Amino acid sequence: MAIPTVAKSRRLRSTIYSSRIEKQGLKSYTVYNHMLLPASFSDTLEDSYFHLKEHVQIWDVAAERQIQISGKDSSKLVQLMTPRDMSKTLNGKCYYSPIIDSDAGIINDPIILKFNDDKWWVSIADSDLSLFAKGLAIGKDYEVDIFEPNVNIIAVQGPKSFKLMEKIFGSKILDLKFYNFDYFEFNDNNYLIARSGWSKQGGFEIYVENDEAGLKLYDELFEQGTQFNVKPGCPHLIERIESGLLSYGNDIDINDNPLECGFERFINLESSATFLGKDKLIKIKKDGISKKLMGVIIDINEIEMTGSLNLFFENNIIGELRSAVYSPTFKKVIGMAMIKKPYFNKDQKFEINLIDKSNQNIHTGKVCELPFV
Amino acid sequence: MAIPTVAKSRRLRSTIYSSRIEKQGLKSYTVYNHMLLPASFSDTLEDSYFHLKEHVQIWDVAAERQIQISGKDSSKLVQLMTPRDMSKTLNGKCYYSPIIDSDAGIINDPIILKFNDDKWWVSIADSDLSLFAKGLAIGKDYEVDIFEPNVNIIAVQGPKSFKLMEKIFGSKILDLKFYNFDYFEFNDNNYLIARSGWSKQGGFEIYVENDEAGLKLYDELFEQGTQFNVKPGCPHLIERIESGLLSYGNDIDINDNPLECGFERFINLESSATFLGKDKLIKIKKDGISKKLMGVIIDINEIEMTGSLNLFFENNIIGELRSAVYSPTFKKVIGMAMIKKPYFNKDQKFEINLIDKSNQNIHTGKVCELPFV
Repeated sequence: MAIPTVAKSRRLRSTIYSSRIEKQGLKSYTVYNHMLLPASFSDTLEDSYFHLKEHVQIWDVAAERQIQISGKDSSKLVQLMTPRDMSKTLNGKCYYSPIIDSDAGIINDPIILKFNDDKWWVSIADSDLSLFAKGLAIGKDYEVDIFEPNVNIIAVQGPKSFKLMEKIFGSKILDLKFYNFDYFEFNDNNYLIARSGWSKQGGFEIYVENDEAGLKLYDELFEQGTQFNVKPGCPHLIERIESGLLSYGNDIDINDNPLECGFERFINLESSATFLGKDKLIKIKKDGISKKLMGVIIDINEIEMTGSLNLFFENNIIGELRSAVYSPTFKKVIGMAMIKKPYFNKDQKFEINLIDKSNQNIHTGKVCELPFV
Repeated sequence: MAIPTVAKSRRLRSTIYSSRIEKQGLKSYTVYNHMLLPASFSDTLEDSYFHLKEHVQIWDVAAERQIQISGKDSSKLVQLMTPRDMSKTLNGKCYYSPIIDSDAGIINDPIILKFNDDKWWVSIADSDLSLFAKGLAIGKDYEVDIFEPNVNIIAVQGPKSFKLMEKIFGSKILDLKFYNFDYFEFNDNNYLIARSGWSKQGGFEIYVENDEAGLKLYDELFEQGTQFNVKPGCPHLIERIESGLLSYGNDIDINDNPLECGFERFINLESSATFLGKDKLIKIKKDGISKKLMGVIIDINEIEMTGSLNLFFENNIIGELRSAVYSPTFKKVIGMAMIKKPYFNKDQKFEINLIDKSNQNIHTGKVCELPFV
């Protein structure tokens, strides 16, 4: 049975870099925000993992779309959508902010970029957050403008990203602090660059606002990067699970609340901020959560996940494995699982029923804290 | 360059039928409402086209998700989202209803199923309409409950669908009128069935609410369908373009308003209904539209679309081709294009610049009315 290919169409938007990455050995796509997002290249998953941890990769993450919220009531709308206290946020900084509805269900977990009190970019995970924001703004009669600007991010990730970016943008780029953003010049074009990215190997995200300038920069990164062993890449399953970076839709969704997902530090229940789901979260905090996102280590050396898998203890379902992959570091399969109360403790043992090479087999594993490294 | 495969994960939800269709010769997937939707099987596009027009096909269209809107204010919320007058709608009927925002931009073009004044299903195209509905309901302080029930549609399409469905559900199913729905029994299970579907070859959509019963029915459809030459299938590019069935995200999107898309008969500007974008639509109707979705016929016999393509007349861009395919009926490429004023007239000529087998070539075509057949 051949692995199904992707049927392209205008609806699954290609990015401005798609034709380039397809020539660079792209093997598979995922779809994210109605856009193609590279999922693997010709290197094996393990080879690209070690490469990302040692060298530098260029990622087409244009699918990480921006929602611009601007106008008189924009701060009020942004605050309404997140339990994080935005009143003390600073211009030129990025804020990881869960977005929840009035039942405290997570709708998205974007990074919010604050330009100023009247202009924000919400760098979204895979759900149409613009529709939620629009609905709220219309319902509340807020004076805001909400749209998706033409921004196509290039991520430069890996320990050698600093040297590569310095070579192109000058040493000033090294002064940019983690989760800050600013404009930097290359060849008479200004690029909004944040020190951020969906790996823990260090790096930058370049918010390309001009297609032509973006393509020139994309090519320049590969040309200047030869000495740093640059390669094309994409968000990496092994690295992101080891690092405990959550994937909306995979590890968390609208049926989970932020207290179940380890987001305590992004929630300010004692602040005077007005946001959706506040009462609900206060009650959940008081009553205690009934499930919790945890790490798991499973005593096997391969797995392929296409959906959730149940975890058992003494014949009870104690949780749901949501993402998993073989880790060359741990020499076992590691993953993210939503574990029920009272089982969400470090070292809790479980069993999992997997189909390996046509045989059903029961395997053992244990729960652990996140992140793995 | 190999065609990229789909990287599966929990986020790109498989359907309850995925493992079956993959054994039945599935070749490619698209992604729709964060779910896998079959896009082609082992038969050629033309073979499956002729098959659909002569026999019967079973489609896994579980990706056509339902948003249930229920509660005291549900009628008010449904009406707020659509310019179609819902005050005269009847229980047990389906209504194709564009959903627009306050700028009259199209957000989705679902079929709305009315159970009663307090319970509706919105059978959505590819955007997170539940988030828009939630935002509005929260902002307006409406008493409604909004969620995505576990409904996984099987479409039975093609002229022999009537005989096949009669064989399974009895002759009562033949009394079901177009765009009506009701419950029908098979093997002690009740199935909500509508006479509808995303083809003009006739057929039904079975709204499966019980996974196990759905899988049994899926298998039964193939078993009982042998005598009708049943095959697995999926929404068909040639058939749907010929029939003028629009695809949200391909042919229309948030930058288009319903008057530009031929939706006049689904808009009731003179009604007393309160809906978003009403003033805006009244103004657009008065001032006239500046672009219009039209059919096009191009003098070539193959095309592969992965995004929009510009159409030219006397060196001006006069429109944007959004979907296109070779039609065995017209022996030319036919498509849907958004054509600018004053060019949106039948028989308007244009040129299109295509890359055929590595050569750039200018081809000619002309505008026509929709649907083609």
